[in-house]
Amino acid sequence: MKNFVFKNATEIIFGKNSERFIGSKVKKYADKILFCYGGGSIKKSGLYDRVVDSLKENEVEFIELSGIKPNPRLEPVREGIKLCRENNIKFVLSVGGGSAADTAKAIAVGVPYEGDVWDFFIGKAKVKEALPIGVIITLPATGTESSNNSVIMNEEGWLKKGIATGYIRPTFSIMNPELTFTLPAYQTACGAADIMAHIMERYFTNIKNVDLTDRLCEAAMKTIINNVEIVLKDPENYDARAEIMWTGTIAHNDLLSTGRIGDWASHQIEHELSGQNDIAHGAGLAIIFPAWMKYVYTHDINRFVQFAVRVWNVELAYTSYEDIALEGIKKTKEFFQKIGLPVTLKEGNIDESKIEEMADKCTNNGTQRVGQFVKLNKEDVINILNLAK
Amino acid sequence: MKNFVFKNATEIIFGKNSERFIGSKVKKYADKILFCYGGGSIKKSGLYDRVVDSLKENEVEFIELSGIKPNPRLEPVREGIKLCRENNIKFVLSVGGGSAADTAKAIAVGVPYEGDVWDFFIGKAKVKEALPIGVIITLPATGTESSNNSVIMNEEGWLKKGIATGYIRPTFSIMNPELTFTLPAYQTACGAADIMAHIMERYFTNIKNVDLTDRLCEAAMKTIINNVEIVLKDPENYDARAEIMWTGTIAHNDLLSTGRIGDWASHQIEHELSGQNDIAHGAGLAIIFPAWMKYVYTHDINRFVQFAVRVWNVELAYTSYEDIALEGIKKTKEFFQKIGLPVTLKEGNIDESKIEEMADKCTNNGTQRVGQFVKLNKEDVINILNLAK
Repeated sequence: MKNFVFKNATEIIFGKNSERFIGSKVKKYADKILFCYGGGSIKKSGLYDRVVDSLKENEVEFIELSGIKPNPRLEPVREGIKLCRENNIKFVLSVGGGSAADTAKAIAVGVPYEGDVWDFFIGKAKVKEALPIGVIITLPATGTESSNNSVIMNEEGWLKKGIATGYIRPTFSIMNPELTFTLPAYQTACGAADIMAHIMERYFTNIKNVDLTDRLCEAAMKTIINNVEIVLKDPENYDARAEIMWTGTIAHNDLLSTGRIGDWASHQIEHELSGQNDIAHGAGLAIIFPAWMKYVYTHDINRFVQFAVRVWNVELAYTSYEDIALEGIKKTKEFFQKIGLPVTLKEGNIDESKIEEMADKCTNNGTQRVGQFVKLNKEDVINILNLAK
Repeated sequence: MKNFVFKNATEIIFGKNSERFIGSKVKKYADKILFCYGGGSIKKSGLYDRVVDSLKENEVEFIELSGIKPNPRLEPVREGIKLCRENNIKFVLSVGGGSAADTAKAIAVGVPYEGDVWDFFIGKAKVKEALPIGVIITLPATGTESSNNSVIMNEEGWLKKGIATGYIRPTFSIMNPELTFTLPAYQTACGAADIMAHIMERYFTNIKNVDLTDRLCEAAMKTIINNVEIVLKDPENYDARAEIMWTGTIAHNDLLSTGRIGDWASHQIEHELSGQNDIAHGAGLAIIFPAWMKYVYTHDINRFVQFAVRVWNVELAYTSYEDIALEGIKKTKEFFQKIGLPVTLKEGNIDESKIEEMADKCTNNGTQRVGQFVKLNKEDVINILNLAK
């Protein structure tokens, strides 16, 4: 086990009707806030009205920043920063999915910074402060509700980049599984794939003797596997929705990283898919992860055997470790298929002629390697993308 | 799953040599602190000197409160409060096991309170503030390093009582598994039993659909089961010590309580054992828990079957759920025996003639019930203690 520092102070307010606390929670931090959200879904569901009522009841003024899209863009971030400065706003609230939250986080670091916020994303500046952030999350997927990450897309060059800093962990996150009842099946499945990927990125590590976190990862993966099919059949099953939602947070709140080094190559490769093709991030991960596994499993076959046996209950004879490992990978791919996700570039409508271009961007023109479990060069990325055809 | 609020902001600094950061960590909060510790073990191991050097290097003044005993007493708490007030001290550091930390926590709530600190423990007053606390923990057991609990013994009447409040979660906890290398086998085993008990208290719940936290609990229990025997044979095995230490924190940092209601009867009954007999808390739990299980398992046999199958790998035919459940209980008891703990009152040198007296105190003269999974009256407690003979 590696030495580590772990701190995650986000307050989670979880359960039925928990959004009714929003006004009183926000009021502790500010009288005037920026209120970020996406499209019409929170209006259609009535959530927008409940939030506005609660804010008004608690005499919290708000300026709105709406229309935030999936794969959140840089422009609304800049607009939000401007709004906060012009209106002397010191608190950012996001209501909706990961895109609204990631936008809020980027705004929160941008407001106190003199330069352009994109500087943080390209490593030109380091985050040293941020406004406090509150979140109501309606899509279990990115784990942004208590993570230290924000991923933003710069339309200039279609660059999708992330920052990671403790300053952007939300002060509080409100999570009501009922708010996920109306999620379409495809979005539910994409969220589940994203959650699985967050765990798998951490699971495949070269650090030895990480017994507890291995088992915690396996527990979280089994919870997703067992509950996502339930909600696809029965979208208003509160308990299964709640399991998925809470697992989505645990998957990415850094507990499962303690003492280990994750891989993250699949995420980096996927960013090129969703960066260039506007495919959902979770769907992109369902395509990339099984291909990545097939490409790297011989690097540590014991780990892939453990994954197959403990997560997928593979019970083949131990005469061939390779067979067991491959069976685990097969079951991973079948799981993504079963929940309705694409598992090949073709199924994801990804233009195969762009494989080299994607590999190029992913490795910064072949100058950088991606991943920690196996450090992949441009050639490796091309091979993985070819395996995903 | 039940609605819940979860927040745990303790910063964990985990790993080899992590205690070298103590001076700089403390300095962020105070220039003058109260430094609580137990007996000579931290002096013998050299830890005391390293802490003092680091404090001095960082120009942190300290007043010492030493000699804190296992089952920590109220008198040193009062003394510590006096010292803090007289010296205008605003930060409490504990170095050592759970007793030093629990003493530090009690001091931290006592200093800003006008009345007697025992008021909090008997429910006469409610904690509304506390000094910040820092911890270096050397015994993986109580989980106090990031819990909201403190348990103190009032020698007047040998009353062992606890408080639970977010105000006493340590600001930071430093955890170096190397500091546990010299723990005697018996103390190591008692710590493991305490950790197992913290998880089992949460595991046995009446709340349905708690899939993720069930699995996280099982992951944590399996980690203890698999690693404690390693360290008993090989006390300087860093990795196994690290697994136990980190699991000890996770077992009691409230993550495993999210969405569920734990039982805690065994802890309450055990407090009478260690309150009156000065037996180690972990040893008392090894005696009580299997007896409690035997007494209550029919209340929810499915849960005990899950426990047997998933935690203890019981593979009996599913012709009799009862047999499977009982086999899981048997394996729990055998585990405690195998690691060298007493599993009967006799083995623990507990005076059996005091059973009624203990049951009396535990249930407040028969007026209160203990436990949530099954609410036990005085008669039930007597029956459990008789099963533990």
